[in-house]
Amino acid sequence: MPVPGPGYSITVRVEAPPSASAAGDLTTAVGKVSGVLTAFDVVESRSDAIVVDITANVSSADHAEDITTALNSLPGVRVRKISDRTFLLHLGGKLEVNPKVALRNRDDLSRAYTPGVARVCQAIAANPEDARRLTIKRNTVAVVTDGSAVLGLGNIGPAAALPVMEGKAALFKKFADVDAWPVCLDTQDTEEIIRIVQALAPVYAGINLEDIAAPRCFEIEARLRERLDIPVFHDDQHGTAIVVVAALRNALRVVGKPIEQCKIVVSGVGAAGSAIIRLLLRKNPGDVVAVDIDGIVHSGRSNLDDNLRWVASKTNSHNVSGTLHEALVGADVFIGVSAPNLFGAEQVRTMADNAVVFALANPDPEIDPLEAQQHAAVVATGRSDYPNQINNVLAFPGVFRGLLDAHAHHIDDEMLLAAANAIADVVDDGRLNASFIVPSVFDSAVAPVVADAVKATVRREAQES
Amino acid sequence: MPVPGPGYSITVRVEAPPSASAAGDLTTAVGKVSGVLTAFDVVESRSDAIVVDITANVSSADHAEDITTALNSLPGVRVRKISDRTFLLHLGGKLEVNPKVALRNRDDLSRAYTPGVARVCQAIAANPEDARRLTIKRNTVAVVTDGSAVLGLGNIGPAAALPVMEGKAALFKKFADVDAWPVCLDTQDTEEIIRIVQALAPVYAGINLEDIAAPRCFEIEARLRERLDIPVFHDDQHGTAIVVVAALRNALRVVGKPIEQCKIVVSGVGAAGSAIIRLLLRKNPGDVVAVDIDGIVHSGRSNLDDNLRWVASKTNSHNVSGTLHEALVGADVFIGVSAPNLFGAEQVRTMADNAVVFALANPDPEIDPLEAQQHAAVVATGRSDYPNQINNVLAFPGVFRGLLDAHAHHIDDEMLLAAANAIADVVDDGRLNASFIVPSVFDSAVAPVVADAVKATVRREAQES
Repeated sequence: MPVPGPGYSITVRVEAPPSASAAGDLTTAVGKVSGVLTAFDVVESRSDAIVVDITANVSSADHAEDITTALNSLPGVRVRKISDRTFLLHLGGKLEVNPKVALRNRDDLSRAYTPGVARVCQAIAANPEDARRLTIKRNTVAVVTDGSAVLGLGNIGPAAALPVMEGKAALFKKFADVDAWPVCLDTQDTEEIIRIVQALAPVYAGINLEDIAAPRCFEIEARLRERLDIPVFHDDQHGTAIVVVAALRNALRVVGKPIEQCKIVVSGVGAAGSAIIRLLLRKNPGDVVAVDIDGIVHSGRSNLDDNLRWVASKTNSHNVSGTLHEALVGADVFIGVSAPNLFGAEQVRTMADNAVVFALANPDPEIDPLEAQQHAAVVATGRSDYPNQINNVLAFPGVFRGLLDAHAHHIDDEMLLAAANAIADVVDDGRLNASFIVPSVFDSAVAPVVADAVKATVRREAQES
Repeated sequence: MPVPGPGYSITVRVEAPPSASAAGDLTTAVGKVSGVLTAFDVVESRSDAIVVDITANVSSADHAEDITTALNSLPGVRVRKISDRTFLLHLGGKLEVNPKVALRNRDDLSRAYTPGVARVCQAIAANPEDARRLTIKRNTVAVVTDGSAVLGLGNIGPAAALPVMEGKAALFKKFADVDAWPVCLDTQDTEEIIRIVQALAPVYAGINLEDIAAPRCFEIEARLRERLDIPVFHDDQHGTAIVVVAALRNALRVVGKPIEQCKIVVSGVGAAGSAIIRLLLRKNPGDVVAVDIDGIVHSGRSNLDDNLRWVASKTNSHNVSGTLHEALVGADVFIGVSAPNLFGAEQVRTMADNAVVFALANPDPEIDPLEAQQHAAVVATGRSDYPNQINNVLAFPGVFRGLLDAHAHHIDDEMLLAAANAIADVVDDGRLNASFIVPSVFDSAVAPVVADAVKATVRREAQES
């Protein structure tokens, strides 16, 4: 059973007798069924009764019901209403579109709208690049999904994906003042998605692809990069690769191993795994061994698709085959972006000394981090309730801030590596240790340094070309 | 030459001698070349010179240059910098996307984003209609254009159209708290536009088509209305029709004529003209005669397209042919959405007594309103510098507010008529006169009553069906 957390928080309004023990009875009842009480507010106090809002973190819908039942069964207590605070937060959506210009009077209107706007339109018609100066294109990114691989929920479709894309857009604004807009497409046809994003591009200075299933996402990204003169970033690939490479850089600083001598096992060769491998290869690692559901990827395996064929050709220098457990023997680093509970402490024991384990499958990692810690020197997950949370929010806001500020027309691996190094370098030697290899997702210093690093790379490339 | 207006306003920074007459010399120089001075700000005062920002409304780029030249030619005066205030206002675009939820800490993040958001996604996957409650779909409208008929500028393309769409979105928020987002499509293929808007629909509760050329706009609107379960409104058609019908209702109150006895000439049978005719016909007018560049539309004319064939079949009950000037003889009402300077005072004299003239071509009307006034009882234009400005901003914000609040799945002529009546009724008998047939575009009472009227109509239809 998952641990109760603030992601699932309910408020139960109850009417209780006005006795001295009422508060104690209510909070005890919640605690007895393992609810984590976070607030107790008396909203009404009468001579015959008190009305109380009890807020608690729960682990599931069944758990919420246990709490309600426990409260209802107290003598004289009646549950009036149960609110789900997460749902309340999402009511009406999480974004709004605000004018940045005043529209108080006719003069304002005649400048912002007709007739004044006509001259601005004509300037852009004469010089299309001016759209980056005179319109929202300057600062706006599309967050594009087809709803085919949303969080761990799978193919839930575009409407159900919208709450995630809104959240992403909110993070863009919060961490990097980027205006991001959700584009949830009611199609999962590769060609159609490409054509649509191409047609939408005039409004945007960048495209952030999100939660699009592999292998479709590779084709969409590659073709859009060819066709568009704005950067195309697939967060599940490139955002993940950036933060993993950043975290690995610092983990290897902790254990004192040069990457050139490390054997790195990557479990999961979908969008994230492939992008991680590609970026790792730029760092000249000792060896990379990729593993998927059918075992170690090697060139002799049958049924390799384009992506796996590429992986097989670039990794696994000894062309070994076998299982994940076999791959782990002697490995210095494990990076998992695959599935829950694939191995245990005994497999970590077979890894090299001072092993590094990144078990990033969400919500349940490839190995329980407490188990991994028994034998590994550094352990990281994607979860917020363990140290070393590897989270894309460290990367994407700053990356796009940099791209927008540099008026970038494309994005490449140099920029991703620059972002990864910038994230890693936020953790200076004084703070670096096995439990602190990446900065906190709330560290407001991260996005600006990532932006600067990306911007500098864009500008350097422009000068060199 | 157009009159200088606040839509084109420049600020010229000059350095001038610190003499007692400097201010007078500078302002006189601007006035002599017909610049309308609106601000005079001393930004720096030294013993040897003063630096002044002179802001003036101008009529054109040439006019702006005249002013600069006039200032530069004054003894001891040097122009340092010329800023175009309209362009300054548009710098960086006119919209931003803001989170409505706090993201201060890990608890906020876990509710607004992962893991909490997953339950919201699952709720929508189970019940798609919940997207109207739990996402921005609740309050969001797409402002869709292909850039093919932007203002009076013609086919300037999607990037150059963006400043107008941003302005429109700003007006949506300002007047009706609707979140509107620009969708400027880099395609002018009818089928592709239809497919794209259909694919984008999950995020929106309404579609506002804008500045799409006729006849493509008719097909796009009709097909989208068939395919989508959200209202599709084409502002150039329906917005214009609503405000024209509202204004006509009040103009006929002023002259005391029932519409059933009026002969109405409509000049221009594009998007606006066709929609005006369609809505007028719902009011049972005496007769409608449509006129385009080839003269009066009648069923015997050759080369009628689908739209004109429909118009011919529904109007012109005596099946007359001829020119616009011939159509005007004996007409009670002229409604022009066509081209500048098509007729003069002598043609108005041939109209019926107490004629009503709406000359709405932009920026130059079908007849100079001052000339029309010589013989017509009520005159209106689309311009802000004459009384009776007929402007769509009276309609579209309130219409969509009503549609969104009623969770409308479509829009129909009943709703447009309800909106028109609501706008007209804002002008009560005490205020109604020949120079005040529509409320001001800044009358904040308009959008709420339009919204209420539309909402009531949606709900009545839902009950009846």
